[in-house]
Parts: sequence; C-alpha cells; structure tokens
Amino acid sequence: AGHVVTAPSRSQANLLDAADRARMLDTARPQTIVHCAWVTDHGAYWTAAQNLDWAAGTLSLVREARERGTTRFIGVGTCAEYEWGSDEPLSETAPTEPATLYGIAKDGTRRTIEAYAALAGLSFAWARVFMLYGAGEHPNRLVPSLARALVRGEPAKMSSGRAIRDFLDARDVGAAIAALAQSTVTGPVNIASGVPVSLAHVGATLARIAGRPDLLQRGAIPDAMGEPATLVANVRRLAEEVRFVPSIPLEQGLADALDHWRAQT
Amino acid sequence: AGHVVTAPSRSQANLLDAADRARMLDTARPQTIVHCAWVTDHGAYWTAAQNLDWAAGTLSLVREARERGTTRFIGVGTCAEYEWGSDEPLSETAPTEPATLYGIAKDGTRRTIEAYAALAGLSFAWARVFMLYGAGEHPNRLVPSLARALVRGEPAKMSSGRAIRDFLDARDVGAAIAALAQSTVTGPVNIASGVPVSLAHVGATLARIAGRPDLLQRGAIPDAMGEPATLVANVRRLAEEVRFVPSIPLEQGLADALDHWRAQT
Repeated sequence: AGHVVTAPSRSQANLLDAADRARMLDTARPQTIVHCAWVTDHGAYWTAAQNLDWAAGTLSLVREARERGTTRFIGVGTCAEYEWGSDEPLSETAPTEPATLYGIAKDGTRRTIEAYAALAGLSFAWARVFMLYGAGEHPNRLVPSLARALVRGEPAKMSSGRAIRDFLDARDVGAAIAALAQSTVTGPVNIASGVPVSLAHVGATLARIAGRPDLLQRGAIPDAMGEPATLVANVRRLAEEVRFVPSIPLEQGLADALDHWRAQT
Repeated sequence: AGHVVTAPSRSQANLLDAADRARMLDTARPQTIVHCAWVTDHGAYWTAAQNLDWAAGTLSLVREARERGTTRFIGVGTCAEYEWGSDEPLSETAPTEPATLYGIAKDGTRRTIEAYAALAGLSFAWARVFMLYGAGEHPNRLVPSLARALVRGEPAKMSSGRAIRDFLDARDVGAAIAALAQSTVTGPVNIASGVPVSLAHVGATLARIAGRPDLLQRGAIPDAMGEPATLVANVRRLAEEVRFVPSIPLEQGLADALDHWRAQT
C-alpha cells in the first residue's frame, strides 16, 4: 500500500502556531497523522514549561485535523506516564501516575484525546516510547557520552549502572511507530524491546565493541536522582496486535552508534 | 485590602487566541488570575470538541501569565472530575476518574498545571464547582425550566427527582471563588454547600414558593442517563481553610430565582 508522506520541518510549520497548523493541515489533508513533536531537550524536558505549550498544541491539532477529515491520529507518549517503582514489565493497562511534569502533560493529553476520539469517531493510538538510542541523539545522553569518550580514547564515566532499562534502537522505534500508524490498533502501545538491560551492560558492551574495556569507569558519576530502579515494557501488544518485532539487536545498535560517533569525532 | 479587578469580556479578548492573551496580560499585568472561561453550553458541553481548545488555552494562559509575573492562579474545575458512584460526600482527595470528555479535559488540565505550578513557584488553586443555579443560567436547566413553567402557570415537568445533588446559589459560588482567590489555599477546593438535596425537593420547594404545587409533574420526563445517583461535596476545606460559608439558603436562592424568571416572562 503506497502512502504519500508529508513530514513538515520546524522551519515549514510551527505546530504551536494556530495559523501554521491550519495551513499545514489544509495543504497536506492527512488521512493519518503521526505526531512526534514535543519538547525533548536533554536534561531540560522533564521540567520544561514548554510541556504546557506542547500539550496545548497537541490538543488543538487533534481537533483541527479531525474536523478536516483526518481519520487516524498517532501520538507519542512515554514510559514516564506509568507509575514508577514496579520491577515487573509494564503493560499498557498498568496505572499511570507520572512523577514529572513531562509525564503528567503527556498523560493528561492522552486522556483528553482518548475521550475526544471516542466521541469524534477518530482512530487514536498512543505510542509509549521507552529508552531509545541511536544516531542523532543528544551527545550528553548515556550511549553517546560513553561512545564519544571511547572513540576518543578518553575515560568513559558512568553511574553505578544498576538501573534496569528497556532499550530500543531509534530506527526500530521509527519502524514500530510506522507499523502502528498503518495498523488499526487503538489505545496505548508500548514501543520497546521488552528486554531488561542494566546500564552497566550497555556500558560494558560499548567498551568491549570499541576494544577499550579499560576506559569504562562505572560509579564515576552519581546515579540519577528520582528515577526508578527498573523500567521495562511488556511488548505483547506491539508483537501480537501491531505484529512488529524489532530487527536491530542491542549489540548491533550499539556497534552502529559507535561507528556514528567515531565518524563525528 | 483593595484590588484592581480587570474582567475582560469575550469581545475584548479571546482567550483561545495567543495574541489576545498576550495583549490582555500585558495590559492588565494581573498578580492573581481567576480563570472561569470554558465551554459550558447547556446540553453540549459534556461532549463538545471545544473542550480541547479550552484545555489548550488554559495551559498556555497559565505559562504566559506566570512568565509575566502572575503569582496566583485560580482555575475552575468540576464535580465531574471525581469518580462517580460514591454515596458519601466527596472530599478533594477522592479519586478523580472522570466519565466525560468535559471532566477528563478539566482533570488533565488541573494535573498538568499542578505539576507546572510546583516547578514554577506559582500558587495554584482549583475551584471544583458542583451544581450551581441562579439568575442568568441556561433556561433549559433544572431550576429555570421549572421556575419558568410555574410562573407561567404551565405544567412543570421533571424527572423522578431521585438524584441527590449539592446545590449552591451562583452568587455564593462567585463569593466562594473570590474568597479562594484572596486566600493562600492551594490545590483543589470543593465549591459547594455540602448539603445533599434531591431534585424532587428542589422541584417541590419551587412549586410551593410559587404557590402552585399542583403544577409539578414528577416523573414526566426520563431521568438523565449516565449520571450518578448522588453527587455531594465535603466542604471542610472551603469552610475551615478558605473560611467561606455560603450566605444564601436554598429556600432563599430558589425564591430569588423564581422572582428572576417571573420578571423575564
């Protein structure tokens, strides 16, 4: 099935501007919208006031699109919507009780769109993304910060690495969201690997692939405050309903990330 | 304590328009904002798509106001935020689990503002209004529909009247919100009487005051679907923390409402 894909860049349309949104929708007349834009500046987005604007812009976009004929809307959510603290894989029916402004703004936006979609006959799915990594991510995030140090031959400093997370290569994240958009699945869907991995394992794998296990310094920086010990997805919906299985194993994804950062250095 | 009160009308500022909001804030430079505007068209507001725009406009207004120096923000919520079904008076700590788009949009907006306010140093309170009545309400709502029939000498048709609600005269609602705005109380505060009253009692009281108990026809129209048997507030916070006690008893408020509708007929 062929699709005409329109991907407006920030310079083409500011989704927080009502006139820009209207112009974009009138030009593209999208049947399906995949709405990924939100504030995600590394380190700042958990508490950024712009989360209010993105929640607002998302709510307006949904209504404006539906009234112009859009029949399916995919929003992008976050594992930060869940109540943190469970050591079990989180399924989409787990309670949402976000601890951060970012998670709360996403959760409130999703709840409101869900209620609207049911009334307006809009097919609505919500991609709950867990930890992603890959080319293009902020250089201060875990994988790039270690990869950049390793390819430069500098000490690769990390926390204790005890935290357990669910990592998915950004290319698989994109492919999973595309598969979700083309499916008829509605409601929240975890976009994740389902594989629990410690940050220490990620660090050790990167260092091994780079051939510099000597450079890895676990415990050299403090563990992040206020973040849960374990955050792993149950991916049954993604696998069985969306029928998407990731194609890039962690080892391959980390090797590609190393290559990417080597080329940038 | 004197206050300069600026009350922009719809013709002066459209709160859903970013430029209008900026102009209004730059002109008034409010220290405290009481934000009552929302879609409340009788019969339509439970499911109206404009709830998305009002949620959006409210979120944007809060951030824009705080960044211009506003230190206190009062939003207006609804008893429809609560999980319906309890026969007990609802305190502000009762679970929110709204059943309607209106309630969900209000709940999501409040959650998001609460998280933002904590980070941004904004004093934020949320007035949860229960059933209000009084001059100016939509003629198809319960009190006006009965009052108008009674003063015209026509049959005053109502449901079984078994539902129990918490009624407060709109003048007391306004005074309670003003008292909340001038207090330092934060978080949700029920704006209500705390007195459980059946709709049948309201109908019988109106008919008695009008001197036409013969015109009241209970059970002539079906009970509203999907609405709870009981919806009554615990008003401890309003009474003890805001130190507000309503001054208009139901009997007086209904008599005034009858006079109002008699003058309109």
